[in-house]
Amino acid sequence: MPYVTVKMLEGRTDEQKKALVEKVTAAVSETVGAPTANVHVIIEEMKKSHLAVGGKLKSEQ
Amino acid sequence: MPYVTVKMLEGRTDEQKKALVEKVTAAVSETVGAPTANVHVIIEEMKKSHLAVGGKLKSEQ
Amino acid sequence: MPYVTVKMLEGRTDEQKKALVEKVTAAVSETVGAPTANVHVIIEEMKKSHLAVGGKLKSEQ
Amino acid sequence: MPYVTVKMLEGRTDEQKKALVEKVTAAVSETVGAPTANVHVIIEEMKKSHLAVGGKLKSEQ
Amino acid sequence: MPYVTVKMLEGRTDEQKKALVEKVTAAVSETVGAPTANVHVIIEEMKKSHLAVGGKLKSEQ
Amino acid sequence: MPYVTVKMLEGRTDEQKKALVEKVTAAVSETVGAPTANVHVIIEEMKKSHLAVGGKLKSEQ
Repeated sequence: MPYVTVKMLEGRTDEQKKALVEKVTAAVSETVGAPTANVHVIIEEMKKSHLAVGGKLKSEQ
Repeated sequence: MPYVTVKMLEGRTDEQKKALVEKVTAAVSETVGAPTANVHVIIEEMKKSHLAVGGKLKSEQ
Repeated sequence: MPYVTVKMLEGRTDEQKKALVEKVTAAVSETVGAPTANVHVIIEEMKKSHLAVGGKLKSEQ
Repeated sequence: MPYVTVKMLEGRTDEQKKALVEKVTAAVSETVGAPTANVHVIIEEMKKSHLAVGGKLKSEQ
Repeated sequence: MPYVTVKMLEGRTDEQKKALVEKVTAAVSETVGAPTANVHVIIEEMKKSHLAVGGKLKSEQ
Repeated sequence: MPYVTVKMLEGRTDEQKKALVEKVTAAVSETVGAPTANVHVIIEEMKKSHLAVGGKLKSEQ
């Protein structure tokens, strides 16, 4: 632990995901004092038709 | 916030999902007093082979 | 199933929570065609010091 | 309830998933005293490019 | 990985929780072929006033 | 969106949590190109008796 989950809309590149997990892992490790090796990051992608803010799907905007 | 997640078996139409997020957003907003614009709804679909009740996968029934 | 999770800031009354699960259950049941008895709703409350939007904790605002 | 979620890398066979939900359901039921029929298990699969431990994606190893 | 989350009503003893994580870890390890050391189990307890099935809170039953 | 959840053992100070959400928000925003204002971070704390790795609760170690 810690266990970090990042939910975001699909469409990011592999390079962006690689940078994401590196930077998030460093941010968590530095601020809460956990060894880098113990930080787990899971990316979960959402389709635009599966996320709504204010009652409106992102696919409808 | 609030953040609402709805996990359900796959197979619903886009129209059903659109109605789902509208009605759920209204239900949450009315009952807890949050502005509609602040309500986030995420739909997560499951395959029948990934959900079990009573130890039996839905795909086996 | 479906399984619904509502994450929101703590502080709502028992009456509000009762209304919340009733209305959300009805909204889900009607729109996706699941029997009411199969709809599960879980409420998860957050402290203001555990939620940040835009990098700022709600407890700091 | 109880509601169990198992997140794991994709690639397991249907037979493995069937055994997984049977054994996990039994384990939960026996130890916490819940009827088997009330135990819900959801499997969530991750791609190797969506899981990082120690800041490194599994797809990079 | 795998990462297992067990959500259940509060009230189980420490002995039950200890047995729960042991048995669930063994069940997951055996069936999906993951080393025991890699299995993470998180217990999340719910209050009866935070869980509803069929639109009715467990605290109302 | 994105929505970030950080699950970790309880015990961090308010200062650590404040730094955590600032740094994680910046890391996510920079790497996936989302405006800072759209990044939501939720902290979830676990008791040592609610987390097990390798079948052993942290409270037993």
